[in-house]
Amino acid sequence: MHLSAATWPDVRDCEAELAVVPVGSTEQHGPHAPLGTDVLTAEAIADAGCERLEREVVRAPAIPIGVAEEHRQFPGTMWVSADTFRDYVREAVASLATHGFDRVVLVNGHGGNVDALREVGARLSRDGDAYAVPFTWFDAVGDHSSEMGHGGPLETSLLQALEPDLVREDRLEAASEGAADGWGEWVSHVNLAYDSTEFAENGVVGDPAAGDEKRGEELLELAGDALAQLLEAVAERDVSRPDRR
Amino acid sequence: MHLSAATWPDVRDCEAELAVVPVGSTEQHGPHAPLGTDVLTAEAIADAGCERLEREVVRAPAIPIGVAEEHRQFPGTMWVSADTFRDYVREAVASLATHGFDRVVLVNGHGGNVDALREVGARLSRDGDAYAVPFTWFDAVGDHSSEMGHGGPLETSLLQALEPDLVREDRLEAASEGAADGWGEWVSHVNLAYDSTEFAENGVVGDPAAGDEKRGEELLELAGDALAQLLEAVAERDVSRPDRR
Amino acid sequence: MHLSAATWPDVRDCEAELAVVPVGSTEQHGPHAPLGTDVLTAEAIADAGCERLEREVVRAPAIPIGVAEEHRQFPGTMWVSADTFRDYVREAVASLATHGFDRVVLVNGHGGNVDALREVGARLSRDGDAYAVPFTWFDAVGDHSSEMGHGGPLETSLLQALEPDLVREDRLEAASEGAADGWGEWVSHVNLAYDSTEFAENGVVGDPAAGDEKRGEELLELAGDALAQLLEAVAERDVSRPDRR
Amino acid sequence: MHLSAATWPDVRDCEAELAVVPVGSTEQHGPHAPLGTDVLTAEAIADAGCERLEREVVRAPAIPIGVAEEHRQFPGTMWVSADTFRDYVREAVASLATHGFDRVVLVNGHGGNVDALREVGARLSRDGDAYAVPFTWFDAVGDHSSEMGHGGPLETSLLQALEPDLVREDRLEAASEGAADGWGEWVSHVNLAYDSTEFAENGVVGDPAAGDEKRGEELLELAGDALAQLLEAVAERDVSRPDRR
Amino acid sequence: MHLSAATWPDVRDCEAELAVVPVGSTEQHGPHAPLGTDVLTAEAIADAGCERLEREVVRAPAIPIGVAEEHRQFPGTMWVSADTFRDYVREAVASLATHGFDRVVLVNGHGGNVDALREVGARLSRDGDAYAVPFTWFDAVGDHSSEMGHGGPLETSLLQALEPDLVREDRLEAASEGAADGWGEWVSHVNLAYDSTEFAENGVVGDPAAGDEKRGEELLELAGDALAQLLEAVAERDVSRPDRR
Amino acid sequence: MHLSAATWPDVRDCEAELAVVPVGSTEQHGPHAPLGTDVLTAEAIADAGCERLEREVVRAPAIPIGVAEEHRQFPGTMWVSADTFRDYVREAVASLATHGFDRVVLVNGHGGNVDALREVGARLSRDGDAYAVPFTWFDAVGDHSSEMGHGGPLETSLLQALEPDLVREDRLEAASEGAADGWGEWVSHVNLAYDSTEFAENGVVGDPAAGDEKRGEELLELAGDALAQLLEAVAERDVSRPDRR
Repeated sequence: MHLSAATWPDVRDCEAELAVVPVGSTEQHGPHAPLGTDVLTAEAIADAGCERLEREVVRAPAIPIGVAEEHRQFPGTMWVSADTFRDYVREAVASLATHGFDRVVLVNGHGGNVDALREVGARLSRDGDAYAVPFTWFDAVGDHSSEMGHGGPLETSLLQALEPDLVREDRLEAASEGAADGWGEWVSHVNLAYDSTEFAENGVVGDPAAGDEKRGEELLELAGDALAQLLEAVAERDVSRPDRR
Repeated sequence: MHLSAATWPDVRDCEAELAVVPVGSTEQHGPHAPLGTDVLTAEAIADAGCERLEREVVRAPAIPIGVAEEHRQFPGTMWVSADTFRDYVREAVASLATHGFDRVVLVNGHGGNVDALREVGARLSRDGDAYAVPFTWFDAVGDHSSEMGHGGPLETSLLQALEPDLVREDRLEAASEGAADGWGEWVSHVNLAYDSTEFAENGVVGDPAAGDEKRGEELLELAGDALAQLLEAVAERDVSRPDRR
Repeated sequence: MHLSAATWPDVRDCEAELAVVPVGSTEQHGPHAPLGTDVLTAEAIADAGCERLEREVVRAPAIPIGVAEEHRQFPGTMWVSADTFRDYVREAVASLATHGFDRVVLVNGHGGNVDALREVGARLSRDGDAYAVPFTWFDAVGDHSSEMGHGGPLETSLLQALEPDLVREDRLEAASEGAADGWGEWVSHVNLAYDSTEFAENGVVGDPAAGDEKRGEELLELAGDALAQLLEAVAERDVSRPDRR
Repeated sequence: MHLSAATWPDVRDCEAELAVVPVGSTEQHGPHAPLGTDVLTAEAIADAGCERLEREVVRAPAIPIGVAEEHRQFPGTMWVSADTFRDYVREAVASLATHGFDRVVLVNGHGGNVDALREVGARLSRDGDAYAVPFTWFDAVGDHSSEMGHGGPLETSLLQALEPDLVREDRLEAASEGAADGWGEWVSHVNLAYDSTEFAENGVVGDPAAGDEKRGEELLELAGDALAQLLEAVAERDVSRPDRR
Repeated sequence: MHLSAATWPDVRDCEAELAVVPVGSTEQHGPHAPLGTDVLTAEAIADAGCERLEREVVRAPAIPIGVAEEHRQFPGTMWVSADTFRDYVREAVASLATHGFDRVVLVNGHGGNVDALREVGARLSRDGDAYAVPFTWFDAVGDHSSEMGHGGPLETSLLQALEPDLVREDRLEAASEGAADGWGEWVSHVNLAYDSTEFAENGVVGDPAAGDEKRGEELLELAGDALAQLLEAVAERDVSRPDRR
Repeated sequence: MHLSAATWPDVRDCEAELAVVPVGSTEQHGPHAPLGTDVLTAEAIADAGCERLEREVVRAPAIPIGVAEEHRQFPGTMWVSADTFRDYVREAVASLATHGFDRVVLVNGHGGNVDALREVGARLSRDGDAYAVPFTWFDAVGDHSSEMGHGGPLETSLLQALEPDLVREDRLEAASEGAADGWGEWVSHVNLAYDSTEFAENGVVGDPAAGDEKRGEELLELAGDALAQLLEAVAERDVSRPDRR
């Protein structure tokens, strides 16, 4: 059930305990992909996961602005501080839980949100407000995961499958040429860079041309399956906090 | 320019100083209207205002969850605290301003957000981060404004114009019968109620049947015109802070 | 019972549940009226309301500094941030409630405090710390209310009734000439101004000469009656929070 | 110049750099003395200090509620948290400083405020917002200081001088009999008590009968002189922060 | 039991309710004494106190950075804000209390921490998280206490007893010559200085040469005894919060 | 230069820009290893890194309590909230930077601190207070890194090299038998567990017996080399923040 389209009596009559909350970011994704990429992909994968499930799940609206200060030098990137993001997500999830939707998967489309969402999930779960875990789709697409990048092959091909008009095909080649090979500048397993522009000339990491609509469909399939499996596990899990030793 | 669909070079090449940020809420709107009403209407009116303007304007994604604890007894209503909402909006707007979009209109669809948005606008403007003002569409639709209510004639007819499928026509009569006449319980010009369920049995204030698609189109027209006029004024205004007396 | 003059055994022996907390501001009120206007008037009306009531009421000391950054360009204006003001009022009221005075009316004399006090009242009431509502006296003086302004006819005539020595009669004419007609600069029902000096040359809104001691006495009468009626309603109200739908 | 009674042009024309802000508390002072004791005494001593000075000084309204949780078991005691108190005082003082009154003495009447005020003064001074120091009157009355207590000989006799009607003379004997000899319960120079009721049966420390109006006048004289001397020193002091070593 | 050296089963099998937490500061102590003085001394005295006790006590690791902004002009001084320090200590103590060690003495080595630790102790104790009191060793060494200073005779001689290599004997004479006689610059019982460099040329207060290893041993003895006595009292105390009057 | 042992003139005369701050945690490390493991190892590796460097480096005292709520069910574990930890570390580092040590490596010994330290480093670096990066030693020990666990082969053998007395050799076998194979309970690449006791019976992950003193020495060597290399890179790096695109 899409919460945005439902009325309150619909929600009252719904017997779900599970909810999914897509969490994205509005930030640069190279010269070829839109700033809304992380919202769009998080929503699509949240929906794909819900569709695959036999249980009822409440699907909340996507949270559109995240922890993206790392891209701030690229025009159009929006962000809030990690503190504010944590508060916003935590309180939004807690409000869902008051209605009985207290097992929540945060379906995330942005790497910069990962740490903050894990912290939020722990806080909610330990405080007993809700049991919540973040699911970052590109971590759960099998071997593809190793090629993630930023505005790279995975996101680009998923967009090609979902919203082809939003991918500037005529800039793919240039995007590819100006792309960085990997995320960050590393010495002794420490990333010395804090801003993506320090290592990614045009904001892209990975080759955006190394995919296509078909790969995108496969990613959607893989991530949707993984999310459905996770939702099932979350629904069945004993979420009571353990006793002291 | 819709920020979500744009790429960063598009944004870099855009000469706007103006931005609009739709701000909504995901909350009960009676048995006939969807929880996403305030997001949907805020977005539509933001777009209507931008279209009417000759200047370029950046249109940010909508902020979907607001100050709606007053509806918390109605299933599905989401909310964050006023503190967190203020932080989220303020920081999001400040991030836009770093890119030069530092004259911002917050296009608001929810009464519960009004005070918080005014506070945010003042803070941003006085700190010199951005000049920002909130525009609440239903305050700017001429004589219609006096009939606002909640899930009442204005919101319902605007939805009928925008997304007719989301209005449960078969529940309109019941919605109308169970509706409250006005917002709150007043003694000595003080509203004694803090939660809408204290005075609105089914969450509706005003007669949702007192409108239709045509009225909705008129509202869109009126609000769009008013917003365009406001944007023009914001673009032209001397926003420097005044000197001490 | 005035708390400041009472001893703790007096308070222990008092059977009130009701308390009033005057809330003011120390801020410019034009060339003719003192910076303490909002404290003075809030106190006077709080006392007038209590006197008219047959029940016992605890009357707390006035909170003297409020949300008045809007007047900061005028010398002598004091203020705190809205966050700090909310905390200060909320915690002060919560401390009263620990002694059993848990139905509280915040008697307010300053427009800039209105939104913050409503938020505080909601927080206290929803958290179950106390049931608290703000009463802003100039909203409850019948037809006079429409002429409120700032340092205008209502405040000036009330001061003439309460503390005539504090009104500089010799500056009334000049104050009147330099006054603004209305509060703010409006486009599309949005006030574009954040600081009063943007639209009020001498800090006055409304004609301070359009009143006299007699009008002031009438205002005191009207507001006192309205407050007494409110206190009675607050004492009798079922303040338990409603159930979920 | 009393700020509350002044108009903004009066303040504009005043050449003071110095301000005094009385800071009190509304809290139990035994069965014989009023809850407003600390506000009343702080105001009186602030005024006494200003009168003795040849320079002009701005006198702000008193802050009436402080850090008094230690007296919370006694009916009528009001308090805010130390965090909120610090914010309220600091921001109020910072607002004064924007008008040029940036050398500020916080004239304090309550022991529980001492630590918090010192922290506030340090913060303001180090941040360069204002140079501010707290002055606690009963530390500056010569040999009398050693007898301070709570609701004891010093406060009682000062009240007898200032507002004799507020002292319940008929309860003085009982107050005296139920009084504690000293503040706290000490082991190894550590006070094991956090609440005054742990060691002071009726809330009194020291003998309230060991004074009279005449002693009160002497205290006023001594504290007023000390404050005037302090104000002079504050006015003359080089308040620039020192360089690094 | 030293927590840092213990394993969790050791802790589980320990029947203590008492814990000591050394709290220090890393800050200048003149040209002759190390920046770690306050950590070192707090640890030594914590251990001395525990050794003298027959009950079991858990000894936590020392908190090494405190409220020391007052020494910031002297190279190497580290500090955190009082807010952060209070949070860090309070949460650390609360975590101990979850394991049953809910009677806690904060063994403090730094004057600048005193007020903050008292506030923390009150908060923990009133909230019922733990009963906690701060013990500042140099307040509990009999007549020696009056000579405390900073990097002066007490700290220097205690270091000479504990870690003689860390005292630069060849700089003692110079340290002594450049030392201030007392802490602060006082007018009317108010310290006008906020930074130690305002009154202490080389950061020293009191004569560092007025002691020796033997005096240090005596201080250790005295403070250890006092702490042991305090721990005994804390263990035996009725720490329930008193009722309302 | 060890800050704790240095005097302020020593620090003044030191020409370092680099500082290292060891950051640990006091938390369970299984039945065989001490709660202070993460502090001890972080300090040892910090020192090993500094020794290998030709430049001068300031070595701060270790921060002993971290983000370890995940181990809270195991007796003796101490922790603070992530918010408080971030504040404490950030402000401590900022205080170092005021003395010119504004290139800082946070040498971390605890997995639970990693996300928080990265956030702190970013904040400090973007705000221009200091350039700071976290180095977590067990990420930088070559192929060993994959066997990290908790109280497992790496930490145990490092302790055997550093402080053999603190390893309970007689419990190693039991520790090994009760150990978990991996950290967490994973479904779809999401860890469903928030507390270590959910998956690690005795708090151990990995085989603590799969190492010895010699392996520990190798780890110290590897981590020390990696840290020295990192410090060199930090010293040489252009740490100015990049321009907007």
